[in-house]
Amino acid sequence: MIIVLKPKTTKNDIESIISFLKQYNVSSDVSKGVDTTIIGLVGDTSSVNSEALQTNPHVERVMIVTEPFKKSNRKFHPQNSVIDVSGAKVGGKSLAVIAGPCSVESEEQICSIAHDVKASGATFLRGGAFKPRTSPYSFQGLEVQGLELLKKAKAQTGLPIVTEIMSPRFVEHFERDVDVIQIGARNMQNFDLLKEVGKTKKPILLKRGLSSTIEEWLMSAEYIMAGGNPNVILCERGIRTFETQTRNTLDISAIPVIKRLSHLPIIVDPSHATGISHLVEPLAKASIAAGADGVIIEVHNNPACAMCDGPQSITPAVFDQLMKKIAAYAAIDGRKV
Amino acid sequence: MIIVLKPKTTKNDIESIISFLKQYNVSSDVSKGVDTTIIGLVGDTSSVNSEALQTNPHVERVMIVTEPFKKSNRKFHPQNSVIDVSGAKVGGKSLAVIAGPCSVESEEQICSIAHDVKASGATFLRGGAFKPRTSPYSFQGLEVQGLELLKKAKAQTGLPIVTEIMSPRFVEHFERDVDVIQIGARNMQNFDLLKEVGKTKKPILLKRGLSSTIEEWLMSAEYIMAGGNPNVILCERGIRTFETQTRNTLDISAIPVIKRLSHLPIIVDPSHATGISHLVEPLAKASIAAGADGVIIEVHNNPACAMCDGPQSITPAVFDQLMKKIAAYAAIDGRKV
Amino acid sequence: MIIVLKPKTTKNDIESIISFLKQYNVSSDVSKGVDTTIIGLVGDTSSVNSEALQTNPHVERVMIVTEPFKKSNRKFHPQNSVIDVSGAKVGGKSLAVIAGPCSVESEEQICSIAHDVKASGATFLRGGAFKPRTSPYSFQGLEVQGLELLKKAKAQTGLPIVTEIMSPRFVEHFERDVDVIQIGARNMQNFDLLKEVGKTKKPILLKRGLSSTIEEWLMSAEYIMAGGNPNVILCERGIRTFETQTRNTLDISAIPVIKRLSHLPIIVDPSHATGISHLVEPLAKASIAAGADGVIIEVHNNPACAMCDGPQSITPAVFDQLMKKIAAYAAIDGRKV
Amino acid sequence: MIIVLKPKTTKNDIESIISFLKQYNVSSDVSKGVDTTIIGLVGDTSSVNSEALQTNPHVERVMIVTEPFKKSNRKFHPQNSVIDVSGAKVGGKSLAVIAGPCSVESEEQICSIAHDVKASGATFLRGGAFKPRTSPYSFQGLEVQGLELLKKAKAQTGLPIVTEIMSPRFVEHFERDVDVIQIGARNMQNFDLLKEVGKTKKPILLKRGLSSTIEEWLMSAEYIMAGGNPNVILCERGIRTFETQTRNTLDISAIPVIKRLSHLPIIVDPSHATGISHLVEPLAKASIAAGADGVIIEVHNNPACAMCDGPQSITPAVFDQLMKKIAAYAAIDGRKV
Repeated sequence: MIIVLKPKTTKNDIESIISFLKQYNVSSDVSKGVDTTIIGLVGDTSSVNSEALQTNPHVERVMIVTEPFKKSNRKFHPQNSVIDVSGAKVGGKSLAVIAGPCSVESEEQICSIAHDVKASGATFLRGGAFKPRTSPYSFQGLEVQGLELLKKAKAQTGLPIVTEIMSPRFVEHFERDVDVIQIGARNMQNFDLLKEVGKTKKPILLKRGLSSTIEEWLMSAEYIMAGGNPNVILCERGIRTFETQTRNTLDISAIPVIKRLSHLPIIVDPSHATGISHLVEPLAKASIAAGADGVIIEVHNNPACAMCDGPQSITPAVFDQLMKKIAAYAAIDGRKV
Repeated sequence: MIIVLKPKTTKNDIESIISFLKQYNVSSDVSKGVDTTIIGLVGDTSSVNSEALQTNPHVERVMIVTEPFKKSNRKFHPQNSVIDVSGAKVGGKSLAVIAGPCSVESEEQICSIAHDVKASGATFLRGGAFKPRTSPYSFQGLEVQGLELLKKAKAQTGLPIVTEIMSPRFVEHFERDVDVIQIGARNMQNFDLLKEVGKTKKPILLKRGLSSTIEEWLMSAEYIMAGGNPNVILCERGIRTFETQTRNTLDISAIPVIKRLSHLPIIVDPSHATGISHLVEPLAKASIAAGADGVIIEVHNNPACAMCDGPQSITPAVFDQLMKKIAAYAAIDGRKV
Repeated sequence: MIIVLKPKTTKNDIESIISFLKQYNVSSDVSKGVDTTIIGLVGDTSSVNSEALQTNPHVERVMIVTEPFKKSNRKFHPQNSVIDVSGAKVGGKSLAVIAGPCSVESEEQICSIAHDVKASGATFLRGGAFKPRTSPYSFQGLEVQGLELLKKAKAQTGLPIVTEIMSPRFVEHFERDVDVIQIGARNMQNFDLLKEVGKTKKPILLKRGLSSTIEEWLMSAEYIMAGGNPNVILCERGIRTFETQTRNTLDISAIPVIKRLSHLPIIVDPSHATGISHLVEPLAKASIAAGADGVIIEVHNNPACAMCDGPQSITPAVFDQLMKKIAAYAAIDGRKV
Repeated sequence: MIIVLKPKTTKNDIESIISFLKQYNVSSDVSKGVDTTIIGLVGDTSSVNSEALQTNPHVERVMIVTEPFKKSNRKFHPQNSVIDVSGAKVGGKSLAVIAGPCSVESEEQICSIAHDVKASGATFLRGGAFKPRTSPYSFQGLEVQGLELLKKAKAQTGLPIVTEIMSPRFVEHFERDVDVIQIGARNMQNFDLLKEVGKTKKPILLKRGLSSTIEEWLMSAEYIMAGGNPNVILCERGIRTFETQTRNTLDISAIPVIKRLSHLPIIVDPSHATGISHLVEPLAKASIAAGADGVIIEVHNNPACAMCDGPQSITPAVFDQLMKKIAAYAAIDGRKV
């Protein structure tokens, strides 16, 4: 931690700050410049109340040097984490491809799509049972009945299930019935929910919040990991910007940035990032090229009748073509689907 | 709802869209231009699946004309809503001034601040018991014990309590013990929590999410109101932008925009919007000048030792001066504290 | 300047960095922590190539402590700058009120508006002769003829003229004919133009770019001042964010932030910030309450027929009411119009 | 164009709007709904003053249906434009690879880099002679002398030159000496400069402004094309968002969005988009995968001593590896370098 002092801070004032810092069991190193004096704190600064320091009238700025994320930090865990999901791996040589409809609508729908995406090479089935909708008047999902239909699709195809949780009351239920618990973008900083899923050992798919920095996102992963659950898969799904041609702006740079900062696997959701079906293929390809560990893609057998997110869903036929492209791209970097 | 068709859509294709629309019990009005044909839907369009329409290969764009918020919409409720909080009113002639520390830290601290802010004219006491912190390693609040201390401060001063809820498990507890339940910015789209507080009749202080549009914010109010609780107070607290001199960017325009769109009261939190104590006074004054129904301000007796948010807290003495300024500004527009 | 080194940087590597730094004639202060070593540079660091340092494989981060703006910095010029515009003052006790139409359209229009706004108390006349339009097919202004009409309006009313320049070719012409040269938001980083107006002594109204940070804005002022022209008036006019209810988001916090960082006067343009006429009054009031030195407001005698920006223009009658409100707000803080 | 009226607009008011519209020589189609009446304008609406309409007290909203860009619009020019640059093609089967240093620093530097990048397969040489710098105190480029050095490098290698113009005074000079004139991000809406380069026939590399929407970007291309110069190459180089891990956020979606909206070629600048050298490779690969027509990459023989942008420059050796990857990716989609 670095404390930049205001010009003209007196020797006495500097000494009183240094003696205040002694309570934290760190030592202080003073660099006196022409205009500016800097105090460098040496030792374990994690307990230092930087906000309190900031209120000192002689302090111009407090700069935190150490990254605040620990368990998700690559510095302390140099090799990639590979998450085991009911036998399938996320984060290793093989790419994860999670496919399925936005919402589970009926047994026929979810099972038919599950068969189709499996035939094309998908490795996981997605499908929403509890749906976070902006409007209370929109379809909210089939809820528990939706989970039952996902289990039927899994029984028929063997595909592990990825689905979103919205309430801490359902953690036990999800722990029993699903393979990957998804935390949606809007709940990325629902700390109550993060703490609850942190008590399980289930793999958690943690979507990035629409306006969350990469550091905040890793801090949310940290909530889950600090609770005892190391199985976190990150999912970039677009951030909110001023551009209106796409629903969100896919932050493609987040992939290599995360790979440098963290050992956790990262996948990309091109369907939600753009909200437009014809953009799914180019962005899925770009994500793999940028180093993502997989993609999550909305596939619907009849987008024109989908109960939600039809405009961003692709058909099983288009998905089948996309899988071939993804495999070719992956091969260049020594990976496979 | 307006459906803009692609150039060269044939008469047959137009007719098939119109017959598809008949299922929604609306009538269609076709305007044929040189390049572009437009279908205007007339009638109650709220049940029309606009996303499904968007997937139609002949549709260029679907434009929604009607505002999606109903119960919070001024069109259907032209007079201002005035919320009754244990006898005090929010949204009428008198401004609401909510003051207190970021976190409840001790009985002495909260009671001392409560006495101070009351003496200066505050009408509500704020104080965090459950704290949403970016890091799992930061102080998380005194939790239930914090609520008990707030009740003591209320017993001594008579100030109604405003405090944040983070989990649906505590709704009953808050309903019994506090006067206004705050939903924090990070939980603005925690729909599970919104539905739960919508089942109570408690006044809800709904903070705007960091990257939420005004429309999304009103839709979150709609979740609470649709559940049966009309007592929603909106709180603007800054949005996330590229500017780094302030923690967030206070969206001052949101005040008159909300006043036009909705009948709900709106207050402003200049402390969280900027994160810097010397900006609290100018922004509090600006908020009142722009038409806000009140302000919520962090006051701490010793900001340098605050367990959180010290840099944005002002002292009781500064708060006292601020109250005098606010009163003068309010008087110009015929309001009072 | 502070250089944060990567963990495990050896003593030899540190020494080679320090000897590299000697070329800049600064001394280095090394603080060795448990994980992290920090080098503080002491002396005049303005010539140090921080980008080159950043490429050193042992350097984790370079943090610049000193603010890069010098001539506009309040640290080196503690008292407010008051700019003299043909006898009128901007930045002192009296507020500047600049009013007039978006575009000069005809002699009758500009003279009639000039008389009206003067009667209500405006102290400057604005009016666009050269118009920056997003589309090449939109009305581009009356250009030189527009300047002539502005001069007639000035001859009749005595109001000094504020108008925008778009090309360095016209600097001499503007220097002769107008009282304040406006640099528009889109040209805030048109460095060629900034250098040219920096060679004159004319007061420059420097609008903030739509996505410019406050620091970048002050650096653009620095371009003008470094050229020899100290007469810069800053103008906040909204930044670009995700919110779509208003055209831009007025960054009201920029006013007190600028007042702390710089000695230059700052005014606000609520008309362009929002694009909506009914928001002009509340935001003009809020700007004065937040400490602005004035406002610039679009007034048109017939907004429904304005050749541009009609939706954000107010009528002379509404402007007259607004002036009364502004005067009342200003009086509270000991200022006047 | 669609005009949405306010609820309760009377028949008389509607008729007066319709008669007002007759001056524009368009016909009006009225759809009367339960709450809302809509007027659809049919015919050539480009001359209708939509802002004036917006000020009508009975008008709720005016929605523009037609895209405002004409010459750059794919609707009116369905096949891809291929730009001829001194014999080389941009926008066809072959990818354009533009490489070179941020700034031209010396003859030895620019010629050495030119030879290196040519040997690795680059097809154009970039290098800044006039540099847009945030600070007036930073190195501003070698200016005209820099252009002379670029010409020497071209004479030695045959690589066409791409370099940035900052002032309309130099258009003639650039027209004579360079192969592609670059308009930088900060000048994307410097309309004076756009008009000047629109009078030439030189290929123009038009960078996207940091906070420009895709539509505004195409409108700036329109300025150049409307002036008579159809040779515009678009360049995505990152937009400004709240994320601070990268200097800007590369908007990878802009590539397929532009491909759908426009016939102009689009290339990507991963160096400026991120500002970090180790992100250049993954983002260059992602750009090609997303369908870009090329990349522009900063290469410096000694990044640690570069006079600007060292941290984002890669060495010739790293560039050589990158070219091999790009070629492999391009081959999958039937393209080549």
